[in-house]
Amino acid sequence: MKIVSAIKRVPDDIQIRLRTRFDEAEFIFCHGMGEARHYLSSADVFITYGEDLDAEKLQAAKKLKWIMVLSAGMDRMPFEKINERGILVTNVRGIHAQPMAEYAISMLLQVSRKEKKLMEQEQKQEWNRKLVMNEISGKTMVLLGTGAIAQEVARLAKAFKMKTLGLSRSGRSKEYFDQVFPVSQVDLVLQTADFVVSVLPSTSETKHMLKAEHFTIMPSDCVFLNMGRGDLVSSEVILEAVQNRQISHAVLDVFEEEPLPEDHPFWSEEKVTVTPHISGISPEYVPRGFQLFEENLEVFLSGAGELRNIIDPKRGY
Amino acid sequence: MKIVSAIKRVPDDIQIRLRTRFDEAEFIFCHGMGEARHYLSSADVFITYGEDLDAEKLQAAKKLKWIMVLSAGMDRMPFEKINERGILVTNVRGIHAQPMAEYAISMLLQVSRKEKKLMEQEQKQEWNRKLVMNEISGKTMVLLGTGAIAQEVARLAKAFKMKTLGLSRSGRSKEYFDQVFPVSQVDLVLQTADFVVSVLPSTSETKHMLKAEHFTIMPSDCVFLNMGRGDLVSSEVILEAVQNRQISHAVLDVFEEEPLPEDHPFWSEEKVTVTPHISGISPEYVPRGFQLFEENLEVFLSGAGELRNIIDPKRGY
Repeated sequence: MKIVSAIKRVPDDIQIRLRTRFDEAEFIFCHGMGEARHYLSSADVFITYGEDLDAEKLQAAKKLKWIMVLSAGMDRMPFEKINERGILVTNVRGIHAQPMAEYAISMLLQVSRKEKKLMEQEQKQEWNRKLVMNEISGKTMVLLGTGAIAQEVARLAKAFKMKTLGLSRSGRSKEYFDQVFPVSQVDLVLQTADFVVSVLPSTSETKHMLKAEHFTIMPSDCVFLNMGRGDLVSSEVILEAVQNRQISHAVLDVFEEEPLPEDHPFWSEEKVTVTPHISGISPEYVPRGFQLFEENLEVFLSGAGELRNIIDPKRGY
Repeated sequence: MKIVSAIKRVPDDIQIRLRTRFDEAEFIFCHGMGEARHYLSSADVFITYGEDLDAEKLQAAKKLKWIMVLSAGMDRMPFEKINERGILVTNVRGIHAQPMAEYAISMLLQVSRKEKKLMEQEQKQEWNRKLVMNEISGKTMVLLGTGAIAQEVARLAKAFKMKTLGLSRSGRSKEYFDQVFPVSQVDLVLQTADFVVSVLPSTSETKHMLKAEHFTIMPSDCVFLNMGRGDLVSSEVILEAVQNRQISHAVLDVFEEEPLPEDHPFWSEEKVTVTPHISGISPEYVPRGFQLFEENLEVFLSGAGELRNIIDPKRGY
């Protein structure tokens, strides 16, 4: 049993713990795919961020039985081939919940409480107490998506005494949501939003799901935050929405094109906050990912228990 | 019954609601003390932020029976004279809790998640995902003080799955605190802190309560936040603590001298974040303050029920 990891900089304590606990397996920790590709042909298990495993490399990995993806977005995975070969795929869905929820709350606080202006004042050594800092407490948050990440955001929003409304395919009620609506009722829900937060993945259903008319429905002091996928809504629609004051601000961590091109108008638009796809990044990420891998490996080797976060290769999530 | 308010810009809807509900009283809403002082001699009730009521003005207010202070800090109130005349004083203690708790969480998120650097990158249109953004989740917060404001901060901290330790005179346990210690155990508590948050008022006991040795006890990656009163610790002690890397950052909303002098080294010290005593400021502040006044006025006029937030003029809080 050969386990190849393409994850860079796996801390020593994690490597030692895995080798000690699973001494029947051979672990090869590589510094990225450039190194890992040389071991793929004999790998039974491959641990990857999922961005670098194309159809060609998959074909070379003839013995592969399980791909552990240390990511939740798997847009570039060759799922057709994976499906044909019946390779097991698991990911770390849910592990992003904590940092992403922190990201969402921190950015909504930053925008509402005018922290950019506050920092500008500090730089100018200006003692000015007149800045109007709005509270996020008691506001209404609309979440596009009601999965693990959305639920964690909703849980924190409830701590801030917010009203939490979810939007999902089924409209089925979920913990931490005051109410969940089916996608067909999007118009009804958006008009009550102080904050609209999207955590939707990229699928054929979510691509360009939000259109110009949705931003006309949102209240003019609404803040839109997208940390799902950039193709949920076109850049032009967002730009027009803030420039025409249909919403007050957009916080964007994901974009149609990443990295966001240097000359993109988002960078300089005051009412758009750009962050470089970092909502899910955390120093706790790799330790948590390997924790989940370790639990799954125990199940994979022993055959006892249930694997967590199995991906359906036909749906891609 | 004449009720004089020195609070600027009381919204019309609040003025109308009070006049309608209490039509036996005469309300005079003034734009600050400059205007209000002319009505003080005949005022039965005076609504003030408390900063502008000195012994002289109090002497002129011969009929005064109740001072409603729309603030929680009352350092400048002439309590000796108030005590002599047996004037009732109530304040809005607890009303600051929500914005101050939001302030604390937002600033700890900002420092931990490197939001200043993130904004600098955005200004430079730099797509850089290498910034290490630490989570606040799961960390240990030590709160100096366990009153209403500290409890609200602790409540939010618990939502972020933090460990919450309180420090108070009595060491009596309080809701939302995992443990509360008496002041005598301050050394023990500080050494476990990721965040130290002070909400202590200014009293003879709290003045310069934190000294240089306390900062040597805190872990070197600890963040210190003071939104209580500036005389808790001297500027020099804080500056030395960050410059000698005894702690990683200080977030200061209160200072020994306010406004913070233009040439004060805090302004330009990267490891100090200065905000201009704004943690308790909120657009919801005046509406909430008058809500509390309204409830107390009902009790004051009818004699039925209990007044909230009565101040002991001998202690000053």
